[in-house]
Amino acid sequence: SKDDFDLAAVYVSDAQYNRNIFFDTTPQAIRLYLLYNHWGLHILVYTFIVVDLALAIFEDPAVFPLPIWATTLIELVCLTAFTVRLVHYAKVIPRDRFWKDPKNICIIVVIVLSLVDIIIYGSLKATGFFAVRWSRVLRPLLLVNITEGRQLRRAFRSIRNALPQILYVFLLFMFSVLMFSLMALKLFGKKGLTTNDGSPYFTDYLDIVFDLYVLVTTANSPDVMMPAYNSSVFFAVFFIIYILINTYIFMSVFLAVVYNNYKKHLKEEVRQLVRAKRHKMVRAFGVLQERKGEEGPVVTQASWNQLVRLVQPGISNAHRELLWSVSDDNNKGCIGKVAFVQLADLLNMQVIVVKSRPHPLQMWLPSLYLSSPSRLVCRMVRHRFFVYAFDLIILINTVFIGMDEENPLISNAEWAFLALYILEILFKLYTFEPRAFFSRHQFWNWFDTLIVISALIATIINSVLKSSGGYTSRQILDIVFILRVLRLIRVVDSIKRFRAIINTLIRIGPTILTFGQLIVVIYYIFAMVGMELFKGKIRFFDAESTDPDKAFCGNPLLKNSLFAKLNYCKNNFNDVISSFILLLELTVVNQWHDILFKA
Amino acid sequence: SKDDFDLAAVYVSDAQYNRNIFFDTTPQAIRLYLLYNHWGLHILVYTFIVVDLALAIFEDPAVFPLPIWATTLIELVCLTAFTVRLVHYAKVIPRDRFWKDPKNICIIVVIVLSLVDIIIYGSLKATGFFAVRWSRVLRPLLLVNITEGRQLRRAFRSIRNALPQILYVFLLFMFSVLMFSLMALKLFGKKGLTTNDGSPYFTDYLDIVFDLYVLVTTANSPDVMMPAYNSSVFFAVFFIIYILINTYIFMSVFLAVVYNNYKKHLKEEVRQLVRAKRHKMVRAFGVLQERKGEEGPVVTQASWNQLVRLVQPGISNAHRELLWSVSDDNNKGCIGKVAFVQLADLLNMQVIVVKSRPHPLQMWLPSLYLSSPSRLVCRMVRHRFFVYAFDLIILINTVFIGMDEENPLISNAEWAFLALYILEILFKLYTFEPRAFFSRHQFWNWFDTLIVISALIATIINSVLKSSGGYTSRQILDIVFILRVLRLIRVVDSIKRFRAIINTLIRIGPTILTFGQLIVVIYYIFAMVGMELFKGKIRFFDAESTDPDKAFCGNPLLKNSLFAKLNYCKNNFNDVISSFILLLELTVVNQWHDILFKA
Ligand code: NA
Repeated sequence: SKDDFDLAAVYVSDAQYNRNIFFDTTPQAIRLYLLYNHWGLHILVYTFIVVDLALAIFEDPAVFPLPIWATTLIELVCLTAFTVRLVHYAKVIPRDRFWKDPKNICIIVVIVLSLVDIIIYGSLKATGFFAVRWSRVLRPLLLVNITEGRQLRRAFRSIRNALPQILYVFLLFMFSVLMFSLMALKLFGKKGLTTNDGSPYFTDYLDIVFDLYVLVTTANSPDVMMPAYNSSVFFAVFFIIYILINTYIFMSVFLAVVYNNYKKHLKEEVRQLVRAKRHKMVRAFGVLQERKGEEGPVVTQASWNQLVRLVQPGISNAHRELLWSVSDDNNKGCIGKVAFVQLADLLNMQVIVVKSRPHPLQMWLPSLYLSSPSRLVCRMVRHRFFVYAFDLIILINTVFIGMDEENPLISNAEWAFLALYILEILFKLYTFEPRAFFSRHQFWNWFDTLIVISALIATIINSVLKSSGGYTSRQILDIVFILRVLRLIRVVDSIKRFRAIINTLIRIGPTILTFGQLIVVIYYIFAMVGMELFKGKIRFFDAESTDPDKAFCGNPLLKNSLFAKLNYCKNNFNDVISSFILLLELTVVNQWHDILFKA
Repeated sequence: SKDDFDLAAVYVSDAQYNRNIFFDTTPQAIRLYLLYNHWGLHILVYTFIVVDLALAIFEDPAVFPLPIWATTLIELVCLTAFTVRLVHYAKVIPRDRFWKDPKNICIIVVIVLSLVDIIIYGSLKATGFFAVRWSRVLRPLLLVNITEGRQLRRAFRSIRNALPQILYVFLLFMFSVLMFSLMALKLFGKKGLTTNDGSPYFTDYLDIVFDLYVLVTTANSPDVMMPAYNSSVFFAVFFIIYILINTYIFMSVFLAVVYNNYKKHLKEEVRQLVRAKRHKMVRAFGVLQERKGEEGPVVTQASWNQLVRLVQPGISNAHRELLWSVSDDNNKGCIGKVAFVQLADLLNMQVIVVKSRPHPLQMWLPSLYLSSPSRLVCRMVRHRFFVYAFDLIILINTVFIGMDEENPLISNAEWAFLALYILEILFKLYTFEPRAFFSRHQFWNWFDTLIVISALIATIINSVLKSSGGYTSRQILDIVFILRVLRLIRVVDSIKRFRAIINTLIRIGPTILTFGQLIVVIYYIFAMVGMELFKGKIRFFDAESTDPDKAFCGNPLLKNSLFAKLNYCKNNFNDVISSFILLLELTVVNQWHDILFKA
């Protein structure tokens, strides 16, 4: 029946995308489940999460302040959306399963706490009291706990699994740092050495521990070593052994532990995924199986065709027939369980269908498109010297970009280059079939076209602004510059070895995306806490300001500090963007000790 | 015959230690070859190489100057030793093989060039001309090309194999840096920004390239970003994307390329080693094989026993019989080729023979050692509270070390602790069989005993010096402090998880040793070149010096430079030790741009 096919299609699709949801098998629940998995809803959920997280830009302390009622309204809309999505999920899976899953509980708790916080914050603010929006720390938890966050949860699980081993290595590492610090205290404490700014060198145990801990990240090398080294060459050996053991050897052990744990964990996860996939495919087979002759249950080609059409509506007949001929290699007209189970993997394989469709112009104006001048143009565009010619043009363009753009010759040449690039794209579109030219895997064609068209638009806007009032928008000019330089990247595609490296980078894109989400979750939590604790502690004054507080970033504690001297005032927790940039700087590790001292 | 057994033993031993030397099979050459492989000669060769390399400490520019005739004499002795070793090698292998091997040619060239250099240098110096000891750069090549340098050559081969791929990644990386620099020039060049010290910011293309290249190593983060960030938040995004792409993504690709290449190369090397080992064992079998019955050639137990005794003279009868019973699993009294070939691997297996030898005291004074008070002592020492008690003592000792050692109570307590530690070792030696206690695998027993005895000796010397003239040698006191702190490391052994990590570290020791040799080879070459180019360019003045040149390290070019301000004068190429420390600092990466600027 139709319902059976729907159920089987859901099993196959779950197997294909590694979804692990224990849904109700009633026809109504299945239809809801199909809706739940619709890609449009996935995008909607992520949009609401991004909006919810981005609220931090507009909430106090804000980059762009909005009134409280506005941000509250947006947040309520987001919370409603999350609630609706959760109710939808509750209708799809059995009730007891729903309440047993900690992910659902976590989402409910986040929503309820956010509501409570909004009410408390609103009423406190209305009555003029001090209030903190503490529930904002919980927002990133939504990103982790929604059904779509499977990859992200896997990444967090990997980290959690490696933690105990990492902890022991870290303890041993700390023991080593403490021992070395004790040795440093004994060796240097009584020598009366001074640092470069005249303060006593290595006389306090806790200061030594901090200095040597910073040295592990190499951030204060070689300054921390110089006073001892100046006193005797042999003391340098102490620091070299320290760096060797604590930076290189321990970091290697750390990496080895993390890597081995990750590999072990990944193997186990993959094994579970394969098992779950097989299990789902066996269920789909159970739904569609028929008895035919003596050979046990089978699925007929007709059922199989209907199933595949349901699972992947856009599949071409040729592709479907290819998959069937792979499954039914003996041409029996039906397949057993073993062959059926492969379907999910077969559907995941990328079959690139090279459609040698004729060019649309050939259909509309055959006499013109097939005339000998037109053919000559096509031959010319396909020739490798066409590629060389444009590589040369890019190189010349590079030189022009490097020169002063206020010279009228240079700025007019820019128009010529733009025209050449547009001409190139038009020529290619004339020669190659446009749908093939803009197919999904043609990364560089997309890249080229987008960059050139954006550059054209930005350049036109810029020159219109300039000629209308003599006024040039700085932002638009910056965008024009960036687009111009980005265009040059195309030259990389002409070198085969570079193309291979770039393709590798594109292939690891999804992993980087998961890792990026993980970083956002962690940074967001730190940024929220940091903002509540440190907002307004440090102020940034712009270059023209003559405020006397400018010399110490508006905080008397920073008088004469290295932090103020290095002009680090903008490294603060005053709004969410500053916080993110500060956290990134701390991750990069250099000078982190100077930055941290402000707290 | 005896010669046959000698030949077979050499094959087995070569297979066991993965030696790949194509020696002459005449009885005389085999005897020479056995001598060539003697461990004493290996040590002698390495000693001469270390002496030859260490000459740099005494040659101009010297740490401890020696007259030219002395260093030349030592070098001539070393060169003679290398020549003798090479002649010995030439007698062992066939003449044509010897001259075909680039390693031998390389050693001959190094020796000849060193002699030529010594003569030229000596005569130029004698006539008062300027002269450079350029052949010193070649010295590390000896370390690579001697027969014993197999592991080191393998490491260099791995690096060479990965070079082409690394080069392409590096080119793409440089392309990326150049593109970003161009973008930075266009974005910031005309904005009129200034750095913290007031100089114009990002106006010269080559300066930008250098600054951004330094940023990849994170050494000038966040300073290089601050002027742009202070001008607009959105410019920070430029730097963040830059660091993301060029530091993190490119470094990951670099590591992946190196790791994958290394793994591929290692697999191939291991395959070759296994093939060569098998080949040698088959040859050994061919020498000793006999016909017995119908089953093809075999080796009898008698021949096998004689062979094993020749290969490993120290092997115990029990161990040898165990190996035979593993090989001859059907108890036939003889083994075929397949079983024989395993012998090299069997000999390499560590069989820990637990000899429950009685304590020597039990043999000499049985009535005393077996008396009930003595047994009580032994039971006490074996009890786990004995370990706990000494862990507690170590902890208390740690606190005492942290306190001021000039307090007489503290310095007297030190004697008590020393006495306790010695007592512990004596108790253990009383309870456990001394040869088992000091067996090869008892790392911590060796460690403890060495540290405690050295500390005892140093402390006694120190107090003798102190009481005799009131004068305390700073060096001896430093050694005493280091030994005291090192003693505390022992506590690590009490925690099982830590012991596991430390054992892993000890196991990768040989790999670290090979890597260390590789580093020495590379640093030595750089140090020699650097010393000839830069010696004396920068001078170090000690703290009491009132020389006006002190403010700029004796080099007018460094007037007002950050290098001089940060008191980096001792980071120079004035002698080999300074050079090595400087190269290590550059490897550690931080502040390397400030250090490099002096050149
Ligand atoms: Na650094």
